[in-house]
Amino acid sequence: MILTLTTDFGLRDGYVAAMKGVVLARVRSAVQLIDVTHDLEPGDIGGGVMAVASVAPFFPSARTVHLVVVDPGVGSSRRLLAVRCGFGLGVGPDNGVLTPLLAAAGHAWSIEREGLFLAAPGHTFHGRDRMAPAAAWLLDGGSPEELGPRCVDPVLFESPPPRPGPAPNTWLARVAHIDHFGNVITNLALAALPSRPQTARIATNETTVWANCYADLDPGQAGMLISSNGCLELALCGQSLAQAWGVARGAEVVVSLAPGKD
Amino acid sequence: MILTLTTDFGLRDGYVAAMKGVVLARVRSAVQLIDVTHDLEPGDIGGGVMAVASVAPFFPSARTVHLVVVDPGVGSSRRLLAVRCGFGLGVGPDNGVLTPLLAAAGHAWSIEREGLFLAAPGHTFHGRDRMAPAAAWLLDGGSPEELGPRCVDPVLFESPPPRPGPAPNTWLARVAHIDHFGNVITNLALAALPSRPQTARIATNETTVWANCYADLDPGQAGMLISSNGCLELALCGQSLAQAWGVARGAEVVVSLAPGKD
Amino acid sequence: MILTLTTDFGLRDGYVAAMKGVVLARVRSAVQLIDVTHDLEPGDIGGGVMAVASVAPFFPSARTVHLVVVDPGVGSSRRLLAVRCGFGLGVGPDNGVLTPLLAAAGHAWSIEREGLFLAAPGHTFHGRDRMAPAAAWLLDGGSPEELGPRCVDPVLFESPPPRPGPAPNTWLARVAHIDHFGNVITNLALAALPSRPQTARIATNETTVWANCYADLDPGQAGMLISSNGCLELALCGQSLAQAWGVARGAEVVVSLAPGKD
Repeated sequence: MILTLTTDFGLRDGYVAAMKGVVLARVRSAVQLIDVTHDLEPGDIGGGVMAVASVAPFFPSARTVHLVVVDPGVGSSRRLLAVRCGFGLGVGPDNGVLTPLLAAAGHAWSIEREGLFLAAPGHTFHGRDRMAPAAAWLLDGGSPEELGPRCVDPVLFESPPPRPGPAPNTWLARVAHIDHFGNVITNLALAALPSRPQTARIATNETTVWANCYADLDPGQAGMLISSNGCLELALCGQSLAQAWGVARGAEVVVSLAPGKD
Repeated sequence: MILTLTTDFGLRDGYVAAMKGVVLARVRSAVQLIDVTHDLEPGDIGGGVMAVASVAPFFPSARTVHLVVVDPGVGSSRRLLAVRCGFGLGVGPDNGVLTPLLAAAGHAWSIEREGLFLAAPGHTFHGRDRMAPAAAWLLDGGSPEELGPRCVDPVLFESPPPRPGPAPNTWLARVAHIDHFGNVITNLALAALPSRPQTARIATNETTVWANCYADLDPGQAGMLISSNGCLELALCGQSLAQAWGVARGAEVVVSLAPGKD
Repeated sequence: MILTLTTDFGLRDGYVAAMKGVVLARVRSAVQLIDVTHDLEPGDIGGGVMAVASVAPFFPSARTVHLVVVDPGVGSSRRLLAVRCGFGLGVGPDNGVLTPLLAAAGHAWSIEREGLFLAAPGHTFHGRDRMAPAAAWLLDGGSPEELGPRCVDPVLFESPPPRPGPAPNTWLARVAHIDHFGNVITNLALAALPSRPQTARIATNETTVWANCYADLDPGQAGMLISSNGCLELALCGQSLAQAWGVARGAEVVVSLAPGKD
């Protein structure tokens, strides 16, 4: 079995390791622990959604549990959920961060099996005290149904899809993610478009260059590419486009297409 | 078997991976490698103590070795220790960083079995050349007794416990740790107090709010909570209290309790 | 089997985890995943060379695959290579980053077995779509020969070796690496020298102190040591020498030896 871990805990404290200890102390069979990221901004639910969405499809669904702990409401009345979906199983708070799992034909259960929880002081670390035990339960072959009642109204992270722009053949998209290299990944799925984008503009910057790969661009040149998730990506060769253009997540991207063939 | 690793090596160089390579090349059975943290400040023994203390209780003691390498004295006459304790086994330099293991009914042996050491140039990396081999020895079922003579006077990291303050019903505690979120964890164990704290003050900042969880606080409000290790924690909702209040590790925390019931 | 991973991907995105997912979804037997570093500067091939060289000798060659993804030319006509060498097997782009493996009696094959590749959009992430599948192939017992034709002219990373200086008994070396602690590791192998260095100078800073270990130095004192890879290292006790002296990788180091005995 495989457990992926996605959190906003950072790696300076021992928080992630404490969760892993709880899992390893409880699971009877071998489990492979995979860190997705622990460098999400504190409480960044949208970032957690993006991280989970970008990795979950690549793990073997029949033997993977995804543990996602971005939980600013820890200890409050927010529910904890176990999810069964097309990407395997998942555990996390009911605040939208599990949206990519729920969107993959997911069903959710509210984790309320108290005998499972770690007896520990306080309510600041349910990742260790409640979610790690629930993940261990699932890794050991337990079912989500046994963890608590069905949850039919899980919180979903809303991210408005791209929409047609005011000018003909234009789309208004958003910056969905800025990666480590400063590449800007939009939410515009290219496979759904009738033709290839001709220009992409963010605020006052624009590119009209289409590239198959970064090396197609001259050093310092901006271009459009197919990102590794199939969406439109903007990149600068050898530099951070996000920095050079001053782009933040959520910024509007105006994309114009070649005139349609019809 | 499980090996936890706690160092001040950072993850930019291959130092941690080199230690893991040495372990994997020597251990005959499967071993699960768990990074606790490698982001301790260079030579920060107190930080290493805090990290080990925060995770060791959660691992299965019968099958865990804790390798702790914060070793500014590497290559000097300082001893290397193997420890057997209530949290399993441990390996590290004799400079106090193993204190949480020694405090858990630990006994120590000086690692002097030279045939075990890696033949490698220089004396700057005993983590790889001496401690990783000793950890592999223990992971493979070897005993600490076979590694060298008993050490009856290991160095302990001294951290003065909280003491009663000059005013009635007050305690003078210390900031033991500032976590990734900027939450301030003190060394004041709440279970030992006769009543709940009413105010906590650091320098000129003070809070009188008690919270069950972060979400009980209004955005930007400071409060007191039970930290995940059972001590008093101070936090700001949605921000770093350490930054907002300008708090550093070791700062004094003045805590006043409700008048006793007796 | 063991898979080491060395990249410039950082750990903020899920890129490394996506590669691991692809490997785990394909490999039939247990595989131990070891992160060497993911914090190389974007496109830093020389840094990747140094990282791989510093860890590869410590892993068991009979059961290790080294996956190295520093690939600014991703998607271009640059080849992808599988390598068999004295340190086991390796996978990476043909841009010089595999040099430490090729230098260890390595033979290379161009990875062209298209049926192996992941069907995924775009050409920005061959680490996930092509190299991870190739690594999985090797981890599962497949041979490099089956991945594609022999490559007899792989790109090698050129780093000029130290050369004798103009003054008698001097060597002109280079800063090969600056580590997390700010220690400066040169490319001057000490075992090859006829006598011990007496002075080491970088620009206007110089030290004449030889130390067995960092603790031999007084706080703030600079000294020369045998680095953990056998080369000359310069360090400041308790501080970053690189910062104090303003040293960058590649800087010239002028080393004078004791007059020879002949």
